[in-house]
Amino acid sequence: MAREYAVIGKSIPRVDSPGKSTGESQYIADMALPGMLYGKLLRSPHSHANIINIDTSKAEALPGVKAVITGKDTLGIKIGPLRSSRDRQPITVEKVRFIGECVAAVAAIDEDTAEEALDLIKVDYEILPAVYDPEEALKSGAPQIHAHSKDNLSLSRYWNLGDVDVAFKEAAYVREDVFTTPAVVHGHIETDGCIAQWDAAGRLTVWATTQVPFYLRRDLSFVLDIPYSKIRIIKVTVGGSFGGKTEMFDHHLAASVIAKRTGKPVKIILTKTEEFIAGLRRIPTKMWMKMGVKKDGTILALESKIITDGGAYMSVGPVTIYNHGLAHMLPYKVPNFKHEALRVYTNNPVAGPKRGHGQIQVRFAIESQLDMVAEALGIDPVDIRLKNALHTGDVTISKLKISTSGLEESIKKCAEGSGWSEKRGKGNGIKGVGIGSGGFACGPRTAALSDSSAIIKINEDGGAIVITGASDIGQGSSTILAQIVAEVLGLTVDDINVVSGDTDTTPYDPGTYGSRVTFYAGNACKMASEDIRSKLAAAAAKKLEVKAEDLVFRDRWVYPRQHPDRRISFAELVRMVQVSSAEGVLIGKATYYPAGVDWPDPKNSYVGNIADAYSFASQVAEVEVDPETGKYNLVRMTMGDDCGYPINVMSAEGQVEGSVSNGQGELMCEEVELDEGRVCNPGYRGYQMPRSLDTPEMKTIHIETNDPNGPFGAKEVGEGFIISTPGAIANAIHDATGVWIKDLPITSNKVYRAMKEAREKGGTGQ
Amino acid sequence: MAREYAVIGKSIPRVDSPGKSTGESQYIADMALPGMLYGKLLRSPHSHANIINIDTSKAEALPGVKAVITGKDTLGIKIGPLRSSRDRQPITVEKVRFIGECVAAVAAIDEDTAEEALDLIKVDYEILPAVYDPEEALKSGAPQIHAHSKDNLSLSRYWNLGDVDVAFKEAAYVREDVFTTPAVVHGHIETDGCIAQWDAAGRLTVWATTQVPFYLRRDLSFVLDIPYSKIRIIKVTVGGSFGGKTEMFDHHLAASVIAKRTGKPVKIILTKTEEFIAGLRRIPTKMWMKMGVKKDGTILALESKIITDGGAYMSVGPVTIYNHGLAHMLPYKVPNFKHEALRVYTNNPVAGPKRGHGQIQVRFAIESQLDMVAEALGIDPVDIRLKNALHTGDVTISKLKISTSGLEESIKKCAEGSGWSEKRGKGNGIKGVGIGSGGFACGPRTAALSDSSAIIKINEDGGAIVITGASDIGQGSSTILAQIVAEVLGLTVDDINVVSGDTDTTPYDPGTYGSRVTFYAGNACKMASEDIRSKLAAAAAKKLEVKAEDLVFRDRWVYPRQHPDRRISFAELVRMVQVSSAEGVLIGKATYYPAGVDWPDPKNSYVGNIADAYSFASQVAEVEVDPETGKYNLVRMTMGDDCGYPINVMSAEGQVEGSVSNGQGELMCEEVELDEGRVCNPGYRGYQMPRSLDTPEMKTIHIETNDPNGPFGAKEVGEGFIISTPGAIANAIHDATGVWIKDLPITSNKVYRAMKEAREKGGTGQ
Repeated sequence: MAREYAVIGKSIPRVDSPGKSTGESQYIADMALPGMLYGKLLRSPHSHANIINIDTSKAEALPGVKAVITGKDTLGIKIGPLRSSRDRQPITVEKVRFIGECVAAVAAIDEDTAEEALDLIKVDYEILPAVYDPEEALKSGAPQIHAHSKDNLSLSRYWNLGDVDVAFKEAAYVREDVFTTPAVVHGHIETDGCIAQWDAAGRLTVWATTQVPFYLRRDLSFVLDIPYSKIRIIKVTVGGSFGGKTEMFDHHLAASVIAKRTGKPVKIILTKTEEFIAGLRRIPTKMWMKMGVKKDGTILALESKIITDGGAYMSVGPVTIYNHGLAHMLPYKVPNFKHEALRVYTNNPVAGPKRGHGQIQVRFAIESQLDMVAEALGIDPVDIRLKNALHTGDVTISKLKISTSGLEESIKKCAEGSGWSEKRGKGNGIKGVGIGSGGFACGPRTAALSDSSAIIKINEDGGAIVITGASDIGQGSSTILAQIVAEVLGLTVDDINVVSGDTDTTPYDPGTYGSRVTFYAGNACKMASEDIRSKLAAAAAKKLEVKAEDLVFRDRWVYPRQHPDRRISFAELVRMVQVSSAEGVLIGKATYYPAGVDWPDPKNSYVGNIADAYSFASQVAEVEVDPETGKYNLVRMTMGDDCGYPINVMSAEGQVEGSVSNGQGELMCEEVELDEGRVCNPGYRGYQMPRSLDTPEMKTIHIETNDPNGPFGAKEVGEGFIISTPGAIANAIHDATGVWIKDLPITSNKVYRAMKEAREKGGTGQ
Repeated sequence: MAREYAVIGKSIPRVDSPGKSTGESQYIADMALPGMLYGKLLRSPHSHANIINIDTSKAEALPGVKAVITGKDTLGIKIGPLRSSRDRQPITVEKVRFIGECVAAVAAIDEDTAEEALDLIKVDYEILPAVYDPEEALKSGAPQIHAHSKDNLSLSRYWNLGDVDVAFKEAAYVREDVFTTPAVVHGHIETDGCIAQWDAAGRLTVWATTQVPFYLRRDLSFVLDIPYSKIRIIKVTVGGSFGGKTEMFDHHLAASVIAKRTGKPVKIILTKTEEFIAGLRRIPTKMWMKMGVKKDGTILALESKIITDGGAYMSVGPVTIYNHGLAHMLPYKVPNFKHEALRVYTNNPVAGPKRGHGQIQVRFAIESQLDMVAEALGIDPVDIRLKNALHTGDVTISKLKISTSGLEESIKKCAEGSGWSEKRGKGNGIKGVGIGSGGFACGPRTAALSDSSAIIKINEDGGAIVITGASDIGQGSSTILAQIVAEVLGLTVDDINVVSGDTDTTPYDPGTYGSRVTFYAGNACKMASEDIRSKLAAAAAKKLEVKAEDLVFRDRWVYPRQHPDRRISFAELVRMVQVSSAEGVLIGKATYYPAGVDWPDPKNSYVGNIADAYSFASQVAEVEVDPETGKYNLVRMTMGDDCGYPINVMSAEGQVEGSVSNGQGELMCEEVELDEGRVCNPGYRGYQMPRSLDTPEMKTIHIETNDPNGPFGAKEVGEGFIISTPGAIANAIHDATGVWIKDLPITSNKVYRAMKEAREKGGTGQ
C-alpha cells in the first residue's frame, strides 16, 4: 500500500526527550513545596496477625514529628482498583495479611526524623497462623485470611467453548505438562511516591508518578469520602512503571490524611526495598496445560487449569484472571477450549498487573508445549505456527474478531530474517534457535468507563494544543498523539503542544495500561482534529472554489490535490475562519470508544469481542549455551512486528526492544524469592535483571497491516512481544540442549541440572 | 418577574475567598523557581533623547550579575496592544520618548545586586527638545516624537450623526463649557511582575499577574518571533489591576530574553514608583462640550472636541478614542451628534485603559453640563434625566440597540431611596445632593477575535470542571461562571471547580477588560452546560418516561416538573449516561460571540451596534461641605443598578461599591502631577486616593431587567457607575455651594477658591 503520510510512520524524536536528556524534567522525588513534610510508612513484620494495640505516643513526642496516623485515623474504607475488588484498607485497621502491609504513617520535618519515629511506634500483634502456598490455602482447615472468603479463594473463572473432550478423542497427539512461573517485579528505576496538599478551599492536590491519574482521583475520592471535584491529580514525569503504578496505594492515602491533619504538604517517596516488599508483583502461577493436535499439527483443543498466588489482596485480580483465558485465544486458532483459573488469597505480598499482564505465563507454557508437540510430530516449529495462525477476518471461538493479522507474514519474515532454516537443529549442542508468537488486544475493555477523550485548540497563529487525559509514562504517547494531530491538520510535530495527565485540565481517560493509549487516545485525537479540519476545509473550499474533499492539508499548507500551486497557508486559513467567520475559535473535541467491542460475561467464558483490534508478534531467539555449565546467552533476537502501521517507527522499535528485554529477564533470571511471606531479595543486587551487556543483537522487521479501526491503521505495540519472548528463548535453549525446562526462570543452573539429568538418563543433553 | 433560580441571584461567597483570606493564594511576588534570577530595568531619566551609546561592561563585571541586555539584544520589533498601535519597542533601541522608558535590563542573583548593576550601566544620551502639552505638540515646529507622525497626532476620529447645526438653531437653550481631566493611575496594591522560564524543548512559560494571558502570548510571540505553541502564559492570582495589566510590557520581554540567554528563570517585579513612572495611566483630556436642548430639557444635540495627551506611545489609543465617542451615546437619547477627538503624542508617560476607559471624562462633562442646563431652565436634575433616558428597544443615532434599559427606574428609585426631593436645594450651603447616570456596553467589540469559549467536563461522580480562558482578576468571574454552570445543571457551586487563565489548558479568551467577562464567558459557560444538560435530559426523559423539556435540574436531582418525587440523582444520571450509553464521557464546549454585534467603521462615526447589551446606572451623591474651607465629604451614595439580573448579588454590590469608590477618588483627589514629563508624586503618599474612612455610606438598589442576550438576563456591572460618579458628586457640590468646577480633581482647595471667587463676584457662594 502506498503511504503518503508527512508525519505518521516516521522516526520522530520524542517530545519529552529534551527535558529528560537535560535532567530538566521534574520527577516526584525532585519536587518540593514550601513547608513540606516528609512521610514514612510503618509496615508489618508479620505475614498474618491481629493488631491488638498501636502506641504512637513516643513517636509523636519525638521533636520534628508533626503527625502519626494509624488505620483508625482513616475512614477504614476498603478499596481495590475495581469495583469488585474492594478488599483492602490502604492502612489496615485490625489485621495485617502480609509482611509489608502498612499499619501506620508518620510525617516529620525531614526523612531521617520520620524514619526514626517509625521505630518508636509500638504495635502489639497477635500472630496468626499463615499460609503461603495457594494449593495449601485452598485446603479445608487452612488459616482463613479474609472474613468474606472462607476457602481463601479470591476468584475463580471457567471457560468452556466447543467440546474439548470430543476434540481430545479426535486428536492424533495429546500431551499434558505442568508449568510454573514465579513472582517478578516491574523493575522500573523510579520508586513510587507522591506529594499531597490541601488548599484553604478544601481541595486536595496530589502530584504523583502514576499511570492512572483519573483512577487515583476516583479511589482517593472513595477512601476520603469527598467529591471528585475536590481532588486534583497531577501526573508528573514517570520514571518507569510497566503496570506497577496503576492503583491508589497506602502512601497516597497516608500523605493525603496527614496533609489534611497538619495543613502542610506531605511527600512520601518509597524506597526500592519498600517497593519490593509492599508493591505489586506479577502473579505466580502453576499451570496444568493439555494440548491436542491433528497429525499435521493443527490445534484441536486446549485445556488448562491455572492456580495463582494472588497474595493477601485482590488488586486487579478480575482482569488478571480474564487475561489468563484470553492468552489462550491468541495468536492461534483454538476450536475447543476449556479452562479453569483459581486466584487464591495467601499471606504473600499482593499480585497486580505487569506488562503482558496475566498472559506471559500462559504464552510461555503454550509456546513451549507447541514446540514439544511439533517435535513429537516431526514438524518444524515455524510450520506448526503457520498452520495455526490467526488471519485477518478470523473470529476466535470466544468471538474475538481479528480485524487484521500480520501473523503469518511475521512468522515467515522473522524466520527468514533470522536464518531459521540454516540454524535450526544445527547448533552442535551450543547454539540454538527458537520461535515464539503472540497476539495482544488493543485496550481490552476492563473498566466501566473506558472512553478516551481529546480536546484540541487551534492557536491564533495556526499551531495547536492537544489536551488529553492520556498519560505519557515514558512510552511516548504525547509524541504519538502530536503526530496524529499534525498529520490530520497538515502541521509538524513542532507546531503541536500536548497537555496531558491532569485531572483538572484534561478530559477523562482511564489511564495508561493494557496497550490502550495509541488506540483509544489516538483515535480520539484523530477524530477531534478531523472535526477541526472539516471546518477549515469548508472555508478553504469556498475560498479556493474547489470541493472540500479534494483538499490536501500538508506542511502547513492547504491546497487542492490537483493544484498544489493554488494554496493557502494553514495559519492564514485559521485566521480567516477564527476572525472572520461565524465559526470563531476553533476547538475540536471527541470521545473514542470502540464500537465493535462487547462487554463479555465472566460467567459465560467471556464470549465477545474484547477489543477492536489485535496486534501480532513473532520472534526468533538465538542462544549460545556453554554445555559444561549450562550458562547461556541470548545472542540475537529477530522480531516480526505487526503493530498495524507504526505511527513512530523509532518509538515502535523501542517498545518492541524493551518488551523483548523484559521477557528475556523473566525467562532467564527474574524471581522474587519468598520465604514464609518474606521477600528474600528486596533489591536489584539480589533480584537479577538483564543489563545492557546482556541485551542481544535485535532486529525489528515491520509487518505492515493497516487496521481499519486503528488511528492511521495503528495497533498496540510491544505487549505481544513480552508475552512470547520467554517461549521463544525456552525453545531456543531446547534447540541447543534438547532439554525442556517448564519452571521459570530458566537459570543457567536449571539448564545445567536438566542437561545433567538428561545425560544421566542416557540422553545427550541434546 | 418570578424567579426560581437555585444558585443565580444569590449572595454566594467567592470561590477565591478561602485562598485570599488565609494568605495561601500565590501572587507573583510570592513565587520562586529553583535557580531563579532577579531582573531590574534601567529607565530613561530623559523625556526625549537619542541613545548614543550604552556601555554595560561595568555592570556585567559586577559579581552576581548574570546578564545585561539592551534593546539591541532584542529583535527591536515594535508592538502595541492593537494591530494598529504597534509603535513601541518594549526595550527601546535608538531613542527614548518619556521619562521611565526602558533602555536596558539586568538579571542577578538577588535584587540588590541587580539594582546596583543598574547604576553601573552608562548610557550616553543626546537630549532632544521635548513637548508635554498636547496642544503645543500639534503646533508646527513642535519637536517630532515619532518618525511616522510628523504632527505628533497619534489618532483622530470624527463622528457626525444627524445635523447638529440645524439642531442647535432649533434649541431653546445652548451652552458650551470646557472641562479638563488629569492623568490618574489604577491604584491597585500589587505591582506588575512576571517570571519567565524556558524549557529544554524551547518553550517559554511566563507566570504573570495579567488581565490578558492570551494577548500576552500573542504579543510575546510577535516580539520574540516564535510561534504561539512555544509560549505558555499562566495568570497567577492578581492583586488588583483595573485596566493596568492589559498589555505586554517591557518587563515581560526583558524577563523572557534574559531567561533565554541565561538558561535560568528570571523574575521581575516592578516597584510602585516604577509603575507610577512607567506604567499606563488614564488619559488626560481637554473637552470642549456644547449641548442644545428644548425648553423642556430634551437634548437636541451634542457637539464636542476632545484633545487628549496620549503620551509617548499609542497603547490602546484606538479603543480609548472610540470610547470618547461612545460615552456620548449612553445613557441618554442624543438625536444629533458631532464629535472630534484628537489623541496626541507627547513626551509624557503613556496613557492606556482604566476602568471606565475613555468614558469617565466625557460623562463627567456631560453629567455636569446637563445639570447646568437644568438649572438654567429650572428643571429638576432628576426630571431632565428622565426626559432623556434611553429605554428598552431604543436605538441610538449610532445604532446601538438597547435590548433592555432599567435607566428610568434606576433614576426614580435612587432619587426616592436617597430622599432626593426632601434634600435637593435645601442644604443650607453645607449639604448637597447630586445625581449622575451612566450606561455601559457589555464587552464592546474591540478585538479581532472577541469570542469566549468554555469547556465543561463532568466528573464521574457528577461534579463538574469548568475550563475557561476568562481571567478572574479579583472581580469574581470564577464564582460567577461556577454559578452559571451550577444553575444549568442543577448543582451547587461546591460541585464545580473552575480552571482559568492558562493559555495551554484553557480555551481562548481575549481577557478581562471592557466589562465583557460575565457576558461573553458567562454565555459560553451557559451554552456548554446546556449542551451537557440536553444530553442528560434525553437520557433521563427516556428513563423516567417523560418529555425532556419537562425536566427540572435542581439541587443535584433531576425530576419532572409536575412529579418531583419521580426523581433521579444527577450523579446517578451521569453514571448512567457515561458508562452505559453511546454518549460516553460528557464534555460540553461552546464558543460565544454576540450575534447582534457589528464591526463599526471608525471612518463612519462607528455606526453599528458595538455590544449585545448595555447596562444602566444612576446614583445620588450626598455631600457635606465646610463653607469656610471648601473641605467636603462624600457622605452617602445611593445607587440604582441595572445590571440585568445580578448573578451574584454580593459580588454585584461589590463591583458597584468599588466603582463608586474609584469614581470618588477621581473626582475628589486623584491626579498624577507631571512637571516636564516627570511624575512628581510617584507613590501613594503624594498620590491621594480615598481610604476606608473616606468611603460613604452606600446603598445599592437592584433594578432588575432581564436582558434576553445576557446569561440568565445578566449584564455588566460596575463600569456604568464609575463613569457617572464624578458627575453625581460634582452636581452635589454645586447643590451645596452653587459653584461649578470643571477641572478634575475637585479638590477642597478648588471648592474654596471657587466659593471665594463667587462671593467676591457678589454671589453667595451658593
